[in-house]
Amino acid sequence: MNFSGLLKYFVPKEKKFYAMFNQAAENTIEASAALEKLFNTPSADDRRAIGLTIKAIEKKGDEFTNQIFDVLNHSFITPFDREDINDLTSKIDDVVDLIYSLSGKVDLYRCTNFSSYMKEMVAIIHQGCLQIKVAVGGLEDFKNSQKVLKSCKELHKLESRVDEYYHMAISSLFENEKDPIELIKQKEILQNIEKIANKIEDVSDVVKTILVKYA
Amino acid sequence: MNFSGLLKYFVPKEKKFYAMFNQAAENTIEASAALEKLFNTPSADDRRAIGLTIKAIEKKGDEFTNQIFDVLNHSFITPFDREDINDLTSKIDDVVDLIYSLSGKVDLYRCTNFSSYMKEMVAIIHQGCLQIKVAVGGLEDFKNSQKVLKSCKELHKLESRVDEYYHMAISSLFENEKDPIELIKQKEILQNIEKIANKIEDVSDVVKTILVKYA
Amino acid sequence: MNFSGLLKYFVPKEKKFYAMFNQAAENTIEASAALEKLFNTPSADDRRAIGLTIKAIEKKGDEFTNQIFDVLNHSFITPFDREDINDLTSKIDDVVDLIYSLSGKVDLYRCTNFSSYMKEMVAIIHQGCLQIKVAVGGLEDFKNSQKVLKSCKELHKLESRVDEYYHMAISSLFENEKDPIELIKQKEILQNIEKIANKIEDVSDVVKTILVKYA
Repeated sequence: MNFSGLLKYFVPKEKKFYAMFNQAAENTIEASAALEKLFNTPSADDRRAIGLTIKAIEKKGDEFTNQIFDVLNHSFITPFDREDINDLTSKIDDVVDLIYSLSGKVDLYRCTNFSSYMKEMVAIIHQGCLQIKVAVGGLEDFKNSQKVLKSCKELHKLESRVDEYYHMAISSLFENEKDPIELIKQKEILQNIEKIANKIEDVSDVVKTILVKYA
Repeated sequence: MNFSGLLKYFVPKEKKFYAMFNQAAENTIEASAALEKLFNTPSADDRRAIGLTIKAIEKKGDEFTNQIFDVLNHSFITPFDREDINDLTSKIDDVVDLIYSLSGKVDLYRCTNFSSYMKEMVAIIHQGCLQIKVAVGGLEDFKNSQKVLKSCKELHKLESRVDEYYHMAISSLFENEKDPIELIKQKEILQNIEKIANKIEDVSDVVKTILVKYA
Repeated sequence: MNFSGLLKYFVPKEKKFYAMFNQAAENTIEASAALEKLFNTPSADDRRAIGLTIKAIEKKGDEFTNQIFDVLNHSFITPFDREDINDLTSKIDDVVDLIYSLSGKVDLYRCTNFSSYMKEMVAIIHQGCLQIKVAVGGLEDFKNSQKVLKSCKELHKLESRVDEYYHMAISSLFENEKDPIELIKQKEILQNIEKIANKIEDVSDVVKTILVKYA
């Protein structure tokens, strides 16, 4: 019997969801920590090993997602709207999916130049995932609503900072990079990092929607 | 007290929405006029100034959007389905967002070659935004339905024309452009112009959906 | 009176939908057969002729889609949820749209090098479209649910195979292709083929959703 199976019998319905959201949020932390490590690892072989770790994290994320949907389909009472649970779960899953997809591209495109912009951006993304856990965790008790809102504001700020780095990096790329294939690679990697930051803000937006409805 | 605040007290509920849609539609006209100017401005400094104007227009667009959502959340009676109001507002906002995003790329990618294809395309987009105002404005009175439908047809035609130019421009690019970085830049700019035209047709599609339901 | 018009009078409501789904599914087979031929045709003129065929197939697909939506809007009783019919129809239409879009790009980008990876991928896509017909056709009688599920599994397997080829092809491209414009072209063509495979799996996902609800 898996974790979701056990939960069915021993934990009150609403608690289950919070435990599962927490797991999913922690998984984004693991994924983003590995991603940050990937961008700071000079050896291609070591990077490939980290890529495999990220692949395993992504698979775990899919399992968490399926567990939540499974419990959702078998619950009459849910802590908030089904649609919102669905949305929150999917957006958290998307964060991990995009991290996995980016790690794949780093390998496939044979990227070797990781600029300090990139390193800053993935470091901020990791901070964002830490905040996701705070925001999602805070949903369990609406007395936390101020704390949750603060996290969402923080997530918005982090997204803006990634965006600023993205603009500087792209601008510098088109100014300085004369090798077109290198430019293609770096442009795509930068765009993919920025997408992850947007997705993290999407999680924050769902959290805010839930808060507005229930707090 | 802002415009939306004033409206709350003096204008009957339904009228409010039409006034706000009108504002949002006019904002697309402003944005597209600035975009057309951007593509016809040879100096990079002048283009940067226009970029700032577009940024301000985009911010204004966000405020209009938030006002509409705010009034929507506090209205029991709406001129048409909430979902349709939501959709119409978002699509109009998307037009301005994409114009802003394109103006940013022109700057970031340090684009300097604006082909006559591009100039034609942004000119048609401006015409499209003028038609958006006609179409959206016509929703206020369903006696106008013929006029609105005519606008929607016109919007479809304009989208097709942008599409034709897009195909010619891309074909010519891959035939003639030998500098790969220049090709990357122009390809992306062309794709972004075409996306705006698609988004304008999305507005027209929402208008038609509303018309079918209520006319 | 067109086919949809005739159906209105002579065929029981539910049967109509299955007949129309079948038509739409067969259209994806035609489109993917033409696409496979396109990638195996050395002459640019011959490829352009195939492109025109695909354009006609896409137009036919739009008509099928409109017919289904039309019948849907005029039916009180439907074989399954309106939303699911809507979704299934749109996803099938998307497959043909993406095939058409890809054939356009092959022409616009003046592609001349069709790698064996590409040829394998479009061959698998054609097999996928054959399976779409089996899966969609099986919905008519829920006694077929095992057969339908088998088709969906097969579709998942085909998507994975396209994905594997995609990864090998991109990896080989970034390892071997030194001409940046050629790299841009091939990268985009490969990405577009992979998108079609994803869309085919989307069809399979809708079919599974319907099966879970009604079987």
